[in-house]
Amino acid sequence: MSNQLNIFIVSDSVGETGEYMLHAVLSQFPNITDDEINIVKYTFIDTIEKLEPVLTLAKTKNAIVITTLVCPELNQFGQMFKEKENLTVIDYMSPLMREIENHSGKTAVLESGAVRRLDRAYFRRIEAMEFAVKYDDGKNFDGIEEADAIIIGVSRTSKTPLTMFLANKGYKIANIPLVHEVNLPKEIYEFNHLPIFGLTASPEYILNIRKKRMEVLGLSDSTKYVSLSKIKEELSYAEEVFRQVNATVISTEFRSIEESAHYIEKHLKHYVDF
Amino acid sequence: MSNQLNIFIVSDSVGETGEYMLHAVLSQFPNITDDEINIVKYTFIDTIEKLEPVLTLAKTKNAIVITTLVCPELNQFGQMFKEKENLTVIDYMSPLMREIENHSGKTAVLESGAVRRLDRAYFRRIEAMEFAVKYDDGKNFDGIEEADAIIIGVSRTSKTPLTMFLANKGYKIANIPLVHEVNLPKEIYEFNHLPIFGLTASPEYILNIRKKRMEVLGLSDSTKYVSLSKIKEELSYAEEVFRQVNATVISTEFRSIEESAHYIEKHLKHYVDF
Repeated sequence: MSNQLNIFIVSDSVGETGEYMLHAVLSQFPNITDDEINIVKYTFIDTIEKLEPVLTLAKTKNAIVITTLVCPELNQFGQMFKEKENLTVIDYMSPLMREIENHSGKTAVLESGAVRRLDRAYFRRIEAMEFAVKYDDGKNFDGIEEADAIIIGVSRTSKTPLTMFLANKGYKIANIPLVHEVNLPKEIYEFNHLPIFGLTASPEYILNIRKKRMEVLGLSDSTKYVSLSKIKEELSYAEEVFRQVNATVISTEFRSIEESAHYIEKHLKHYVDF
Repeated sequence: MSNQLNIFIVSDSVGETGEYMLHAVLSQFPNITDDEINIVKYTFIDTIEKLEPVLTLAKTKNAIVITTLVCPELNQFGQMFKEKENLTVIDYMSPLMREIENHSGKTAVLESGAVRRLDRAYFRRIEAMEFAVKYDDGKNFDGIEEADAIIIGVSRTSKTPLTMFLANKGYKIANIPLVHEVNLPKEIYEFNHLPIFGLTASPEYILNIRKKRMEVLGLSDSTKYVSLSKIKEELSYAEEVFRQVNATVISTEFRSIEESAHYIEKHLKHYVDF
């Protein structure tokens, strides 16, 4: 194909949802390179006067249009334009909104994302992210009992990314590294009310990741940090701790962050609340 | 309505995308309480044998079914079931996937999320989250030049949540607090190649947020931290710094994190890369 693939994301807010969906689908096309695709976001499109020129431009560029508009008039206009001009318009809001209205008998408030997001869940997410940073890598224990869960594990088992990912979903997570030579703070044995998750992986996997890490840092790999026997020691120490604190053990070796997070969420069970 | 609203999220992976879409739409229904809605995720549904009983159950419960399945056979089965049984099934993957195939002439790889996410962008996100934690709140300057951008601002202007939000999208952001009495590290004046964003808000807004914060911490608000005149001093100091380092100034007062992030992304311009 000589032509570029043009995709327009059209939103009444910042285009977060359309972007999310597009990237979920685009991940199915690793064979489309960055050079071959041109993505443009049109944000804060909240009137027909703003929408029409975008659709007209899309038509001239043969673009795929993704919309996440809550206003029915705008979606009807998009639908009409689609049929009249034979333009590809994918409306990600209307079908589910309509079905929820039908099934629940309630009416959508039709507020664009910018407004609706400043709600309770939004502030909880902010709070969770601040919490995650404050309690990352065992750097603080004061007030840690407010966590929704504790994550423990040896170095390079994805504690921080997993913590941040869950924080972004509104969960307050503290993570604590397990270092063989360093005594674990006694607080951890007192968290009886808190779920504790222990991250693990095979020694070979951790060795490999640590080696890469040392390369990036420009350091030789002849340190204790990257010795296989040392890692095995660390892991058996970790196993001992997991047993002592009754941790739910998760291997992060063949799991993406999303999968590990999903597993933890299932245990936390207040999923519906968000 | 006496009946509960049942929603099934059906995914061939962990259901992240369906969940995201559902919550984007549900935010339009603040009038539906948690008690009135029942959301169930069915994950790793990758065969018709697994899909059929879920759809049958959905039918008996009059549930709305949201699917994010990449396999065309599964989606065809869902479509057939929908028509035959008059079940509500909303397929979030097929329409856009089909259109991208039509427009690009390329074929989707049809790998479920669990697999596809362990790619370059995925590792970049992990790296970005680790970076964000390492360089949060000015706690480290060693290696800070690898950042995609620097965020500076006085206390309570949302530096950390904004940094974490951008990290979750793969951007490496370092954030540095501006404290009147403390000299800014000289490094910041040397970041000529790095975009710097200065966060600000009105003194009244910051006062209000800080007061709430002190309440949560159980502290009296008669400290310097919550004095309006002191905050005004801090903000004029911040303005001076913004000018010195040629920062792009963003007021976070009436903006959600998503909006501020969107604004920064536009400046960073390597958006298409993700």
